[in-house]
Amino acid sequence: MRVTVCRKAHFNAAHRLYVKSWDDQKNEEVFGKCSNPHYHGHNYELIVNVTGTLDPVTGYVMDMKVLKDLIKAEVEDAFDHKNFNEQVPEFTDLIPSAENIAVVIYNKLFPHLDEDKTLEVVLYETPRNFVKYSG
Amino acid sequence: MRVTVCRKAHFNAAHRLYVKSWDDQKNEEVFGKCSNPHYHGHNYELIVNVTGTLDPVTGYVMDMKVLKDLIKAEVEDAFDHKNFNEQVPEFTDLIPSAENIAVVIYNKLFPHLDEDKTLEVVLYETPRNFVKYSG
Amino acid sequence: MRVTVCRKAHFNAAHRLYVKSWDDQKNEEVFGKCSNPHYHGHNYELIVNVTGTLDPVTGYVMDMKVLKDLIKAEVEDAFDHKNFNEQVPEFTDLIPSAENIAVVIYNKLFPHLDEDKTLEVVLYETPRNFVKYSG
Amino acid sequence: MRVTVCRKAHFNAAHRLYVKSWDDQKNEEVFGKCSNPHYHGHNYELIVNVTGTLDPVTGYVMDMKVLKDLIKAEVEDAFDHKNFNEQVPEFTDLIPSAENIAVVIYNKLFPHLDEDKTLEVVLYETPRNFVKYSG
Amino acid sequence: MRVTVCRKAHFNAAHRLYVKSWDDQKNEEVFGKCSNPHYHGHNYELIVNVTGTLDPVTGYVMDMKVLKDLIKAEVEDAFDHKNFNEQVPEFTDLIPSAENIAVVIYNKLFPHLDEDKTLEVVLYETPRNFVKYSG
Amino acid sequence: MRVTVCRKAHFNAAHRLYVKSWDDQKNEEVFGKCSNPHYHGHNYELIVNVTGTLDPVTGYVMDMKVLKDLIKAEVEDAFDHKNFNEQVPEFTDLIPSAENIAVVIYNKLFPHLDEDKTLEVVLYETPRNFVKYSG
Repeated sequence: MRVTVCRKAHFNAAHRLYVKSWDDQKNEEVFGKCSNPHYHGHNYELIVNVTGTLDPVTGYVMDMKVLKDLIKAEVEDAFDHKNFNEQVPEFTDLIPSAENIAVVIYNKLFPHLDEDKTLEVVLYETPRNFVKYSG
Repeated sequence: MRVTVCRKAHFNAAHRLYVKSWDDQKNEEVFGKCSNPHYHGHNYELIVNVTGTLDPVTGYVMDMKVLKDLIKAEVEDAFDHKNFNEQVPEFTDLIPSAENIAVVIYNKLFPHLDEDKTLEVVLYETPRNFVKYSG
Repeated sequence: MRVTVCRKAHFNAAHRLYVKSWDDQKNEEVFGKCSNPHYHGHNYELIVNVTGTLDPVTGYVMDMKVLKDLIKAEVEDAFDHKNFNEQVPEFTDLIPSAENIAVVIYNKLFPHLDEDKTLEVVLYETPRNFVKYSG
Repeated sequence: MRVTVCRKAHFNAAHRLYVKSWDDQKNEEVFGKCSNPHYHGHNYELIVNVTGTLDPVTGYVMDMKVLKDLIKAEVEDAFDHKNFNEQVPEFTDLIPSAENIAVVIYNKLFPHLDEDKTLEVVLYETPRNFVKYSG
Repeated sequence: MRVTVCRKAHFNAAHRLYVKSWDDQKNEEVFGKCSNPHYHGHNYELIVNVTGTLDPVTGYVMDMKVLKDLIKAEVEDAFDHKNFNEQVPEFTDLIPSAENIAVVIYNKLFPHLDEDKTLEVVLYETPRNFVKYSG
Repeated sequence: MRVTVCRKAHFNAAHRLYVKSWDDQKNEEVFGKCSNPHYHGHNYELIVNVTGTLDPVTGYVMDMKVLKDLIKAEVEDAFDHKNFNEQVPEFTDLIPSAENIAVVIYNKLFPHLDEDKTLEVVLYETPRNFVKYSG
């Protein structure tokens, strides 16, 4: 019996979107005000969905406290109140678009899950813009 | 690498649910107060989910501004503050149920997406009633 | 000891905004697409706030079930799935703007409350536009 | 043409998480404060998603009023303002974790749906913790 | 210059509403299913509003981290995952209605605030029922 | 007859909290991670409440489209996707705390309102932290 357990988390951060090898004009054309060199920022809302087998003794797919602590250690402590471009190593050579941030979160969380689990990451950049990635 | 990008939009409109070939009594039996001949209306909340390949240069699946403008042109400008039964041509011979509105939105948006993209439309008729369609 | 108890309710309806003595052009100028002669509609979210003295025996300001039933009888049953302009008598000669709907709701509910109570009505026409009236 | 219709519902209840054959210390270790012998409780938010064929005459997958009444009869009337461990027979020998409650809801609703329908149950235990089950 | 700072918090708990000196029938008449002797429960959402003078140096009315920690110590640690009737001393002889819980929270928080501050407590028992108290 | 009309708006921006005349250690002590020299950011949600006399002809306190355009011109265009410390002149010598941003918004909007109007600004820095200012 496969069930999905879902946990919401939150962090806020600054970023800018730009390709280093492009000049300002091209970055402005492609990324608009998201390429502002002085940065802007977001309250990111994260939903982590883990699908696995229901344990018949505990009634758990996995302990939600373990999942909460994993998200805190791997995501919130690493990203909260940070500047993605300047202070988060994964984005030194990677544009911190919502898509890429979701992929990075997936890659940080997945190795910590048991083998039978599958993972989906949903990341809200704003209440109107969000992305999903499941490997 | 396939990622889904999601965009919320909004419009409000009037409608009534009824089958033209049925009499008032049968429409009332099947559709209840939704068949009120004087119409009623809703704030429709729309979520458009587009799945595609992540561009390694821009970090985008597609430019969300392009998606936002597409939704505005095809959906919001066509439906907002309108009466579905009287003023939206797609519903001249089609009941404007939430299900049918979602299918119509899918059919209006899909031809504008690149070939490698897949599409899902989620439409809230009220905060408690909503529908999903993905082709 | 004065405490406020608050109850949310919901109805949806059609309306149009126009002054009967004005021509179409002037109504269009003042009310824009809200004056569409074929109507449009909304999911109205209502919050009713009643302030009164805390009963030391029951711990209640008033029984929320009584408040819920009052809102149902006076507001939801009267407005839900209706056309304000055509089917709600209070709006025969009154523009069904959010402001006026809130005032009408206040005037319908207030006489049913005990003398020591005060009332505030909050009415959401959309998630982004709402009004408040407290007599 | 397959479309999904979704309906939100609500109930609140008390529960505790514990394995009857374990002593208090082990239950405390595994379930933490969720094993409090005096119970705690939640406002459960339920989303029921039914996928089926769109009826070309009515524009319905199924009548949402029928779905609403089914959820009320099978879930809300059975669980609302109850203690899962003490008053809901399905949980006499089953831990009322969010996962198990979702599975029980699925099993109560599914037999009432037409054969061509599929079902997904989403259950929020808190705004930050929720589960999904689709058989 | 007076500004209000607001902080949301969360706890969940079990309770029942009943007057000890009344028999079961009278409690059932007055409190309905809320008087269930086996308890039921809620996810309580709390908003704490503190009004005070804006500090011209820090731009703060009060440090929100201090407010967050105060709410955690006085409210969340005391109430979360508890049974109000059985495990929270303030309710040994006081009905744990939303109104009374809000008053108790006010009385627990207010003495910790500086003299120039005023306080309002908003407590959601469900998303549709909530109360406000400001002393 | 006085009624309040309320309009929600949105912008996102980067900021840091620090007193220029303090050293890094003191800023860190007072503002914690909010003083990160590389900035962080937020999705700010704004609610603007205008109270005035109900016009008996139009049923309006003020045209919500005018209010929407005023908020866009004075707030969204000035703050959206900006760095408060570096790019918004009002904050050259003022800490961009939520409190100060709310006061600045009030001072920008108020002169544009008719004399009989009063104004309240509510600003959410995160879904859990928000402030209110009414002059």
